[in-house]
Amino acid sequence: MSGSILGKVFIVSTWGESHGEAVGVVIDGCPSGIHINENDIQKDLDLRRPGGNKFGTTRTEADTVHILSGVFNGVTTGTPISLLVYNEDHHSKDYSNVQGVYRPGHADYTFDQKYGLRDYRGGGRSSGRETLSRVAAGAIAKKILEALNIKVLAYTHSIGDITINNFDESYIKENPLFMPDRDAYKKAENLIDQCVKKKDSLGGIIECCVYGLPTGIGEPAFDKLDSSMAKAMFSIGAVKGFDIGLGFEASKIKGSKNNDLFIENNQKLTNNCGGVLGGISDGDTFVFKTAFKPTPSIGISQKTINSDGETVTIEIKGRHDPVIVPRAVIVVEAMAAITIVDLLFQNMFSKIENLKNLYNKS
Amino acid sequence: MSGSILGKVFIVSTWGESHGEAVGVVIDGCPSGIHINENDIQKDLDLRRPGGNKFGTTRTEADTVHILSGVFNGVTTGTPISLLVYNEDHHSKDYSNVQGVYRPGHADYTFDQKYGLRDYRGGGRSSGRETLSRVAAGAIAKKILEALNIKVLAYTHSIGDITINNFDESYIKENPLFMPDRDAYKKAENLIDQCVKKKDSLGGIIECCVYGLPTGIGEPAFDKLDSSMAKAMFSIGAVKGFDIGLGFEASKIKGSKNNDLFIENNQKLTNNCGGVLGGISDGDTFVFKTAFKPTPSIGISQKTINSDGETVTIEIKGRHDPVIVPRAVIVVEAMAAITIVDLLFQNMFSKIENLKNLYNKS
Amino acid sequence: MSGSILGKVFIVSTWGESHGEAVGVVIDGCPSGIHINENDIQKDLDLRRPGGNKFGTTRTEADTVHILSGVFNGVTTGTPISLLVYNEDHHSKDYSNVQGVYRPGHADYTFDQKYGLRDYRGGGRSSGRETLSRVAAGAIAKKILEALNIKVLAYTHSIGDITINNFDESYIKENPLFMPDRDAYKKAENLIDQCVKKKDSLGGIIECCVYGLPTGIGEPAFDKLDSSMAKAMFSIGAVKGFDIGLGFEASKIKGSKNNDLFIENNQKLTNNCGGVLGGISDGDTFVFKTAFKPTPSIGISQKTINSDGETVTIEIKGRHDPVIVPRAVIVVEAMAAITIVDLLFQNMFSKIENLKNLYNKS
Amino acid sequence: MSGSILGKVFIVSTWGESHGEAVGVVIDGCPSGIHINENDIQKDLDLRRPGGNKFGTTRTEADTVHILSGVFNGVTTGTPISLLVYNEDHHSKDYSNVQGVYRPGHADYTFDQKYGLRDYRGGGRSSGRETLSRVAAGAIAKKILEALNIKVLAYTHSIGDITINNFDESYIKENPLFMPDRDAYKKAENLIDQCVKKKDSLGGIIECCVYGLPTGIGEPAFDKLDSSMAKAMFSIGAVKGFDIGLGFEASKIKGSKNNDLFIENNQKLTNNCGGVLGGISDGDTFVFKTAFKPTPSIGISQKTINSDGETVTIEIKGRHDPVIVPRAVIVVEAMAAITIVDLLFQNMFSKIENLKNLYNKS
Repeated sequence: MSGSILGKVFIVSTWGESHGEAVGVVIDGCPSGIHINENDIQKDLDLRRPGGNKFGTTRTEADTVHILSGVFNGVTTGTPISLLVYNEDHHSKDYSNVQGVYRPGHADYTFDQKYGLRDYRGGGRSSGRETLSRVAAGAIAKKILEALNIKVLAYTHSIGDITINNFDESYIKENPLFMPDRDAYKKAENLIDQCVKKKDSLGGIIECCVYGLPTGIGEPAFDKLDSSMAKAMFSIGAVKGFDIGLGFEASKIKGSKNNDLFIENNQKLTNNCGGVLGGISDGDTFVFKTAFKPTPSIGISQKTINSDGETVTIEIKGRHDPVIVPRAVIVVEAMAAITIVDLLFQNMFSKIENLKNLYNKS
Repeated sequence: MSGSILGKVFIVSTWGESHGEAVGVVIDGCPSGIHINENDIQKDLDLRRPGGNKFGTTRTEADTVHILSGVFNGVTTGTPISLLVYNEDHHSKDYSNVQGVYRPGHADYTFDQKYGLRDYRGGGRSSGRETLSRVAAGAIAKKILEALNIKVLAYTHSIGDITINNFDESYIKENPLFMPDRDAYKKAENLIDQCVKKKDSLGGIIECCVYGLPTGIGEPAFDKLDSSMAKAMFSIGAVKGFDIGLGFEASKIKGSKNNDLFIENNQKLTNNCGGVLGGISDGDTFVFKTAFKPTPSIGISQKTINSDGETVTIEIKGRHDPVIVPRAVIVVEAMAAITIVDLLFQNMFSKIENLKNLYNKS
Repeated sequence: MSGSILGKVFIVSTWGESHGEAVGVVIDGCPSGIHINENDIQKDLDLRRPGGNKFGTTRTEADTVHILSGVFNGVTTGTPISLLVYNEDHHSKDYSNVQGVYRPGHADYTFDQKYGLRDYRGGGRSSGRETLSRVAAGAIAKKILEALNIKVLAYTHSIGDITINNFDESYIKENPLFMPDRDAYKKAENLIDQCVKKKDSLGGIIECCVYGLPTGIGEPAFDKLDSSMAKAMFSIGAVKGFDIGLGFEASKIKGSKNNDLFIENNQKLTNNCGGVLGGISDGDTFVFKTAFKPTPSIGISQKTINSDGETVTIEIKGRHDPVIVPRAVIVVEAMAAITIVDLLFQNMFSKIENLKNLYNKS
Repeated sequence: MSGSILGKVFIVSTWGESHGEAVGVVIDGCPSGIHINENDIQKDLDLRRPGGNKFGTTRTEADTVHILSGVFNGVTTGTPISLLVYNEDHHSKDYSNVQGVYRPGHADYTFDQKYGLRDYRGGGRSSGRETLSRVAAGAIAKKILEALNIKVLAYTHSIGDITINNFDESYIKENPLFMPDRDAYKKAENLIDQCVKKKDSLGGIIECCVYGLPTGIGEPAFDKLDSSMAKAMFSIGAVKGFDIGLGFEASKIKGSKNNDLFIENNQKLTNNCGGVLGGISDGDTFVFKTAFKPTPSIGISQKTINSDGETVTIEIKGRHDPVIVPRAVIVVEAMAAITIVDLLFQNMFSKIENLKNLYNKS
């Protein structure tokens, strides 16, 4: 069904397979009047581009974005925005050996079961390349947030069992793992190097903060801020966990410790709740964590089955990230931005005053 | 906006405030031909009813469900099903002292910010009483799953820091905490007793298994099985975390350990992935965990502010659960059933064969 | 599927069968701050109530509306509004003879084909009684329009071949056919009297004007003002035609005659287009016509088949309107109001300025 | 808002401006297993192509379609299908004189009012060129209908006041006006020739028949077969009227004449209702008419205003169709096919048997 469409009013619709002609996205519901150009989008795409650093794959495509509609003279017109990136560097041969083989930890088997066939070239639709569309749409969402002084910041919280102990925002973009802690980065770098030697892979956790979010964002009972964000994060491949504020830890402590006491100026003494109460933003920083499994593509020999049900052995060769987390940071940021823009729009209806102000003045 | 509507084809729409006239739900998209009566629904409602056991509040309402439409002579007709439960036991006075006060950990403040006013009686729309609607709809979803030999089973995985070490399914409904482990139950019972004495509260984790789910369920890229379930779970009040299979643990181990190897008969050697690959069910048991924060309503004196911004002190009296987890077990089960039914329907479109079989035969 | 839910942001969900327990509606997406009480709704319900005049059926139910949620102290809270009307006057026996019979012009046959069974009591879900839900929701939509100085006015344009030649707004509510022309009313009254004697029935056309609609309402390419209204009108039972402005007549004249020339102050010299250009309101009066077929329930003996495929003869007895048009006037008005409110909300996103004004000020 | 997305389960999302880079469409919800190639789409695109005959504009673009995703080895994979047509023949200069001018009968004024700015090149988003996307998506919908032996056939019913009196299906594609009546065609051809000489334009009516539609299609109360089709038709630019079966005529005759009597084999003696009862298909041919206004672009000098509110005179030069109807025939067919496929899918949920048959067998 319509699984590739996200959002209720700021609607993002992605399409494209890893080794098809192109991947792209259509954004319907973007207001007019936003200044945007291809560079605004390209700089985010470059952050997720493979080959960007020693921890990524060596597939080296330019991933150049094209704006095909919805922007005229550098300004959005309120009509659907179509963005497209051609797939240049196919190298289909690298994947030919996995055509009928169900790689462990991949979606090969389930796509075949669901659809009866699949585009087996490089993961097809389930490839990480689909996130190009998300990052492109996210760049536009971030332009909207910028106009409202809202900032989304994602960074690596852990790689394997190496967790940050420090938060130096300025350091995030200075290291290829996007960690805000130099010591943690050094340890993680070492961990990855060892892992690569063993042809194995790692997972990790990305944390994301949203600063400047107004109060009132989130639509109970089902489209709450946290439930909407949970859906957005779990829609990213390889995600296995998500929590808000103290998250799972909150389930282990007492109410007297977990409750955030309100103080003057509508502030809270603590932010254990992560900026959301009853599914609605409380004006504090919105904080959440997303856990990624280790990359399933590993060079180590693995037993599996093929589409005839026979047992076979595979050693996945070619280009694969030993850890997907650093490239996923910009994807988390994009999905967070898209989700928040959609909820900011939805909240416009909450009070009749908003409607009166708009129409009685015009 | 339309935050109270969930689902794309099996659509559940809840309404009602804690101390209004009634709470209810409309289900649009339920097929004809399902045998259903009020008892089928009532037995699930009774499981979440307050006053059912020593760990619950003492609010003692019958919570009797009424089927108002969509069922004729005991069978669904394919038209919208309207279910309603009257609010009998209002006791509004118990809440009068919190009218202008923002209770820590509650949605009082955020509802006021979002809407400019709120129904302050007993939490209004953000009350746990809203889950009555979900459980009622869930009972109908479970009848559909039953017809397809799919079973959803939720149970308490932990209370505070007491976690199950054993899984005895038969014991789940024999203890008021719905734990599948007698020893863990005894420890948890003791922990709660101590907590009640201190007027404090506890959280915990609910685990849920879906047995018999066919392969192919879940709609990439955004309405995946896991992302849809994440949204459903986070839509329940007090939820702060969610993970699938190994979940957060998966982020800490190597790919070679996390990958589930396929073996003959399309089985997997392990189920670390929790039954979902690429957002689509793989035919194995679908397993996930949902973390609940401790009940925010505690008898301990807390500082907070009122709607005038003044600092006040409150001691929340009256009926409150020391831990919400046991009553939430049936809610988790209901939301899981609703989500899976919606995705089972959506998957009907995945192959043209399904359409041909239906229309060329009729 | 979800056929009983209308709207994208102001979402109306109707439920209920003619002779079930009750009929009702849930409105999700109504903003907070609207003063509403049961009388506001009741007065519209009374306009469609059977037995109101000599041209209606004699089923005499009070059709009393109950507000069950979403309104607190007389003001909407922004949460779902649930409205309910009990079915008092069932008289199921009147319909027992049509249980297995497919009445010509009714939905008996198609419901049986679609669902395999149906609630055959009084038309069940396809009964005109379902419009009670629409009128109730429409009353709330009209309160919103009132706050924005927008007025929806529907009236009878023709009964059979008797068409109005005059427009006296004050006369509309002074005659039971809601015609704005006394002469036409007299002729139509006479026509209906003759028709009743022959146990036959009549159709007619309802015209509707929306005054004060701002420019810019309607969302191309698919949710245009006219396409949204067409859908809303055709969702009313017995509707067979719909047109805007000159409508079908426009297809017969030259462009030079049909084009409305713009003049100073953004006015148009004529309004052949009916107030909509490119699917968007142009600030002029929005005018459309909806054609209703004659009531299919007639006393004249008709041949038909039953569910066993046998030919049978029926004479439909009991209470039936000789012409449905006068009772449908308030339904047209309700559906128009609902549709316009939904589009007014949707248009709030069209410019980034609207978002900035809301969030940068708060 | 999301005005450019149509459908609930077979979801069509169009994008693109007349003189931007390209126009295109994404189809989400198309099942796997449909054999499709670019020729299947191209042949429909060629039918709406300008310059195809003496009655069209002389803009001569190839309008070559590209399939960018969702099809692998000539078969749909169940993932989103992205189709794109580049805009080759811009000739922007032809439109430079209308940049700030509001052309009568066009959407220039309303787009400016709604969005505060517009892509004024050749009508931008409101250009007829947007229908390329619809025709491309319609070609895929028609492949699905073909697999189910359902046929959609649209043709010209009238041009100005010249109406068909005869129905010769084989003649439809043998004349450039797609009329099924040679005499009517000859008269219409003559009428158009005279009109062109006067630099004026004409409208007309397109009729559409759907053959082989199963019973049970259409989702009451709001997504009925007729209401869904009404919306689809009114979403096409220049449409001013729509009716089903006898349509407006039905409002003028008696019930005894309008009712279609059921006879043996679930047939009806007549088909005044146009194949739909209670919003659900009755197994008979589904028939409807759509009225188009005369092309608003005429060479005759017209007074209008510009964006500064000043009165100006324009004579629209360049390429314009004297009557849009013949090129709209394939658009009507496409929109009808898209709407029916969506409803065929939605009807799959109507009975629990359908679900059981699918899942208990697999």
